[in-house]
Amino acid sequence: MKPYIQKQMQAFQEQNRNRGRLLISCPDQPGIVATVSRFLFEYNANIIESSQYSTNPEGGTFFMRVEFECPGLSKKAKEIEQAFEEIAEQFSMKWKLSYVHDLKRTAIFVSKELHCLLELLWEWQSGGLLTDIALIVSNHEDARETAESFGIPFCHVPANKENRAEAEAQQLRLLEEYKIDVIILARYMQILTPNFVAAHPNRIINIHHSFLPAFIGARPYERAHERGVKLIGATSHYVTNDLDEGPIIEQGVERVRHHHNVEALKKIGRSIERSVLARAVKWHLEDRVIVDRNKTIVF
Amino acid sequence: MKPYIQKQMQAFQEQNRNRGRLLISCPDQPGIVATVSRFLFEYNANIIESSQYSTNPEGGTFFMRVEFECPGLSKKAKEIEQAFEEIAEQFSMKWKLSYVHDLKRTAIFVSKELHCLLELLWEWQSGGLLTDIALIVSNHEDARETAESFGIPFCHVPANKENRAEAEAQQLRLLEEYKIDVIILARYMQILTPNFVAAHPNRIINIHHSFLPAFIGARPYERAHERGVKLIGATSHYVTNDLDEGPIIEQGVERVRHHHNVEALKKIGRSIERSVLARAVKWHLEDRVIVDRNKTIVF
Amino acid sequence: MKPYIQKQMQAFQEQNRNRGRLLISCPDQPGIVATVSRFLFEYNANIIESSQYSTNPEGGTFFMRVEFECPGLSKKAKEIEQAFEEIAEQFSMKWKLSYVHDLKRTAIFVSKELHCLLELLWEWQSGGLLTDIALIVSNHEDARETAESFGIPFCHVPANKENRAEAEAQQLRLLEEYKIDVIILARYMQILTPNFVAAHPNRIINIHHSFLPAFIGARPYERAHERGVKLIGATSHYVTNDLDEGPIIEQGVERVRHHHNVEALKKIGRSIERSVLARAVKWHLEDRVIVDRNKTIVF
Amino acid sequence: MKPYIQKQMQAFQEQNRNRGRLLISCPDQPGIVATVSRFLFEYNANIIESSQYSTNPEGGTFFMRVEFECPGLSKKAKEIEQAFEEIAEQFSMKWKLSYVHDLKRTAIFVSKELHCLLELLWEWQSGGLLTDIALIVSNHEDARETAESFGIPFCHVPANKENRAEAEAQQLRLLEEYKIDVIILARYMQILTPNFVAAHPNRIINIHHSFLPAFIGARPYERAHERGVKLIGATSHYVTNDLDEGPIIEQGVERVRHHHNVEALKKIGRSIERSVLARAVKWHLEDRVIVDRNKTIVF
Repeated sequence: MKPYIQKQMQAFQEQNRNRGRLLISCPDQPGIVATVSRFLFEYNANIIESSQYSTNPEGGTFFMRVEFECPGLSKKAKEIEQAFEEIAEQFSMKWKLSYVHDLKRTAIFVSKELHCLLELLWEWQSGGLLTDIALIVSNHEDARETAESFGIPFCHVPANKENRAEAEAQQLRLLEEYKIDVIILARYMQILTPNFVAAHPNRIINIHHSFLPAFIGARPYERAHERGVKLIGATSHYVTNDLDEGPIIEQGVERVRHHHNVEALKKIGRSIERSVLARAVKWHLEDRVIVDRNKTIVF
Repeated sequence: MKPYIQKQMQAFQEQNRNRGRLLISCPDQPGIVATVSRFLFEYNANIIESSQYSTNPEGGTFFMRVEFECPGLSKKAKEIEQAFEEIAEQFSMKWKLSYVHDLKRTAIFVSKELHCLLELLWEWQSGGLLTDIALIVSNHEDARETAESFGIPFCHVPANKENRAEAEAQQLRLLEEYKIDVIILARYMQILTPNFVAAHPNRIINIHHSFLPAFIGARPYERAHERGVKLIGATSHYVTNDLDEGPIIEQGVERVRHHHNVEALKKIGRSIERSVLARAVKWHLEDRVIVDRNKTIVF
Repeated sequence: MKPYIQKQMQAFQEQNRNRGRLLISCPDQPGIVATVSRFLFEYNANIIESSQYSTNPEGGTFFMRVEFECPGLSKKAKEIEQAFEEIAEQFSMKWKLSYVHDLKRTAIFVSKELHCLLELLWEWQSGGLLTDIALIVSNHEDARETAESFGIPFCHVPANKENRAEAEAQQLRLLEEYKIDVIILARYMQILTPNFVAAHPNRIINIHHSFLPAFIGARPYERAHERGVKLIGATSHYVTNDLDEGPIIEQGVERVRHHHNVEALKKIGRSIERSVLARAVKWHLEDRVIVDRNKTIVF
Repeated sequence: MKPYIQKQMQAFQEQNRNRGRLLISCPDQPGIVATVSRFLFEYNANIIESSQYSTNPEGGTFFMRVEFECPGLSKKAKEIEQAFEEIAEQFSMKWKLSYVHDLKRTAIFVSKELHCLLELLWEWQSGGLLTDIALIVSNHEDARETAESFGIPFCHVPANKENRAEAEAQQLRLLEEYKIDVIILARYMQILTPNFVAAHPNRIINIHHSFLPAFIGARPYERAHERGVKLIGATSHYVTNDLDEGPIIEQGVERVRHHHNVEALKKIGRSIERSVLARAVKWHLEDRVIVDRNKTIVF
């Protein structure tokens, strides 16, 4: 990694050594917020940001995200988690406590088109994406120079329809070896097998180059041009085993006109893809996204 | 019609008695612009606005819209049209010459939801839609009061699956009686038969409450909610006999979030529908839209 | 008031008879959320929506809005308010508890241009603005017909530079007589005196027809045209005694091009003004806006 | 220059060896379009795109941009220019004929913040900006590594209030030596003297980090934060000797909320600056911008 990015990441970790994020989902009932905020107060935590949402106050599901500052957090972490388990049981909560200084480790998968990769690297080096980009994987060599100029390990794993099993086995070994938490498909043009996807639930983020559910599948810009739409878009979503049907994190569109040919749509589209994917990744890294069946709550 | 709207329309007609619009489409070749602009110059016409587009300069289709000011236009109209026929033959043109003072006559079809109708009436009374709204047709009584407050004839034509043939026969008689040029389906919730549609090619404008081609057909907001999209939209298009597949004139979207339920999506959607339909209608009335197979050129 | 609007308002009040909103601002310190949510829980209130913001977790100001459902709220109201006073003192809070069924009473001030008034009335009748529009005041007669068609009392108070004191005295009497909570200046083209403004702190909402702080003062569209900007906008803000300097609630813009003359800018601008003002009013009515010196927190 | 960018540029030049662009401004009168299009037709030119605008058809100024394909253009260039001179005199035209294969030579001036430079280089390498970036000039060393990685000459010219005359003399020598046509101030934080500006009329493009005319001058994000605006923006304009008052080419905005501090505004702002500057530069390079006093026509 470039020394100044490393330095920047360390400064961020230092600043956030007492910063935690609590994500909760459970059946809605009165008293959840009171109980959780009392719990945090007892550990001297100051709530910095708190968001909540209920699908239905009567019998629905309740979601909550609390970001807090807690002096001596790292030392108390184990104790806090154990103590919270009791509350979680009482309210039948699914929950997760994240420690902000504990950066998620990211792998970016890419093929030949580099615009999404470049946007992520750029946001990363300017401090907008707080993660440890530990690995870049590609079925082509095009991204090697870029990866290496950022000091990020680059692994060329040839992948195509014929060698899918073998390629994925190698990729899974790499993900394990590099202890990867998040996989970003930055215009990675290979389909992943159910096996691979199941191993990383809600941890693979894809960018699809259309405004889903319009133009699911291949050649969306060509099909948008044929249909004569007046807006084109891009969609970032978690990958599931239903093609382009995973929970949507973010979408964006731009206006187009009759004179834009397919090439022009692709150029405009690349700009949408870049910003939509960067926002979705940022929100994921900041623990702002909760998946509820096939949908996302974005706090 | 309210007297002040009538007065406003007359003033507009007076101001535009020498204003014409020429729409052309033909196989592309050099010399079209030179020939057309020379032709207009010979009739002392001053070009006010001119737009053109070619699908492909080598062997494609060429489209052109010229708006011009020509002293004594109404007297010369016949002569100009006859003279232009020669050029049209030479270049194998489809063409149309519109006289701006000759306002198109519009019928608005509506069911129970009045927001699109109200937007159109409002734009109309504030001078944004230059047309003669000659008739409002509905399969319900909800719009009667509004229509009558604007002094526009209101015709209640009960229409449902059972009496479609009979209802359409009555509607066709009305359209003929009122000499209607443009039909606007402002959330008219009945399907039109192929017979009705074929009688008005590229003259029926619909608003569909989704960002087509996503959510074709019924209940788009419900389906958008189920899918968890982050943007919802509306599409205005010419009606053809393929449901929601006609040439798109205009689209719009708005951002939504996880906490918006179906009711909230509908409310946001109504605002998009209003503005998208109003823009599409405005462009049609200003002769800005040329249909090329299943797509539109909007100048 | 039109009977169906009245009916709609009553239904809303009935649905929300147990709905409250608590707005708080105080110096930030740990334990506020815990204390407030515990308090609500003890009164069996279920938190429906909760938002908070701190200008600085260390020594800044903390703002909070909680919307809750509390069985038997109206009966317990007095008791709750008294009990909360103790917490408020402990944390040095400024606070307000609103009862949703207790609709705010609104007066709309308007001059000759009616587009903002019409947008508000429309949103109101379609259930988007939950308030009792009790009065329309104007220095002209143009809005009378509209006001009366909605069954809203209309008061013509001639106002100009000469008779300002007298006119305002009459307006103040009307506001008192009709027990007005919120005053909306929907393109009301008269300046209010410091006396009038001081009597309604953060309760007068204005729409200014520019993207403030650009083009403060008169003739903003003319000046935008002279400057050749590529976007025009509108700003809704609370009125203070510094012209166009009050706390901004909402802003919007639209793209314009070189061919748009002043008249076209005004037309585009009217559409922005309508939607920006409607959003600002909606947020105010839903108790989403907290004023902090010359700025707003919008939850 | 990186070999593949060079190759890409050469391919573009080869494809466009017969492509010309004619820009015209003159007093409006009938017959201009007819004469110009006839002229082009006589040289076998096929019009690819044509735009026009008149400030007022009666006595205003007429502007026109025609892009055309003319077989053997480079050989006929001199002849065409001489022949057109006659038409230009007849209509009192200011005009310019650009040859697309003849790429403009660009210098980018930058200080310490590199986001605008990076966006331009990226658009350039992906084929979105067709120009020869011949030189990067900076008063700091921060951009050197980036410049050199793209194979672009980098010149460090220390510049500050004290040595302005000397620094500009050196810069002017460099601009001459590298035959620069366009100067882009990509967040170059030094003020240019009237002397420097006068030497490059309508050829210096700046990006200002506010939505002009709001927040002219220094520290716009700080002032936007103090004022509590709900949208922030950026403006790209030609540099004149009135600070931030030059003709605006393009503007953009993004929504912000109360919780965004100055640092967050800057981050959002950088993204707006990037895209606004890139669009303005692209339009300038494609000869789409005509300056009319303090305003631009963008075709």
